[in-house]
Amino acid sequence: MRISELSATSGVPVPTIKYYLREGLLPHGTPTAATRAEYGETHLRRLRLIRALLEVGGLPVAAIAKIVAAVEDESVPVHTMLGTAHYALAPVIETSPGDEELRAARARVDELIAELGWQITPDAPTRTELAWILARLSHLGRPAPEEDLRHYARVVMDLVSGHEMAKVPFDGPREAAVESLVVGTVLYGKVFDVLRRLAHESASARLLGA
Amino acid sequence: MRISELSATSGVPVPTIKYYLREGLLPHGTPTAATRAEYGETHLRRLRLIRALLEVGGLPVAAIAKIVAAVEDESVPVHTMLGTAHYALAPVIETSPGDEELRAARARVDELIAELGWQITPDAPTRTELAWILARLSHLGRPAPEEDLRHYARVVMDLVSGHEMAKVPFDGPREAAVESLVVGTVLYGKVFDVLRRLAHESASARLLGA
Repeated sequence: MRISELSATSGVPVPTIKYYLREGLLPHGTPTAATRAEYGETHLRRLRLIRALLEVGGLPVAAIAKIVAAVEDESVPVHTMLGTAHYALAPVIETSPGDEELRAARARVDELIAELGWQITPDAPTRTELAWILARLSHLGRPAPEEDLRHYARVVMDLVSGHEMAKVPFDGPREAAVESLVVGTVLYGKVFDVLRRLAHESASARLLGA
Repeated sequence: MRISELSATSGVPVPTIKYYLREGLLPHGTPTAATRAEYGETHLRRLRLIRALLEVGGLPVAAIAKIVAAVEDESVPVHTMLGTAHYALAPVIETSPGDEELRAARARVDELIAELGWQITPDAPTRTELAWILARLSHLGRPAPEEDLRHYARVVMDLVSGHEMAKVPFDGPREAAVESLVVGTVLYGKVFDVLRRLAHESASARLLGA
């Protein structure tokens, strides 16, 4: 299809498509004339991924370029490719090396992960992110009890390994797996969060007989 | 205790305490001299609540004033008081009345809640919030399957009614229940979210044999 059709089908305006082509986010089409190129399914799929990363993940173009590079490089294993996208979605936590509370919380997170037997790389930003929240709870005088963390971890792993992982199309095109991971991580994370708040309202109404 | 001690014990600077007094967020102390007043446990508890609403909930002072008013007015039932805090924590969703996708999603949310038998007020902002996410998923060509929503709802209600509600001190001072709800909603929501992303990494590592 021509660039105008690619735009109509994907819903992405032509100037934006041209910008993605210049930035290397989208591979060039097959030239059919001096100023014309043919685009196909690969381009549609890529635009869908870019849109998910941009609109759902809220990622800057530089981060998207890194993820796209991992998608394009077939020598990058799928797990590493997914990790690139996954880590890009984590909020940046500024750690001040002098923060004792944070250091203690981080040690606790590492212990918990080891105890659970979860396979998490040592430099995963999610470790620091969890440590930061635990330090915050301690700082507010409400340290998270060990058994609560273990309970949450159990519930969450049941959900992920018993339900969510089955939804990721690992055997399709590399783009599709990344897109599914991003949408699943961000939007289903939000679904879960809102449902949890709804459940709080309902449980509180029941408990207090409102 | 005097205002300087209240500041030292709570960690809130004296000028900030004076600002809260002026804004009516904090009740005045018992006057002991022309320019002196005595503060007690109530004030400490209130400062703790304000700090949780401000730092953890990220709420503006106007919203905090509304919550504090509900805490102070003993004629407001506990469930209503908690609802005031709870709804203040929900992000504001702008609904454009012409948005068909959103309207359809909202009808779906109402149906789901009815089917689950959850007690949620008809004008809860969480209804619109969930509808907005579902509309977004549909818009991205990934509508959330009914059975997924029901599965998430079951998991979440188990967690909330079987675990989280037991942590809220309903029989203590009104401030303590609100503070616990805010910290629980926001920070434990984040704990859950990070654990879910950690579980994704681990499950993916296992599945792909990394």
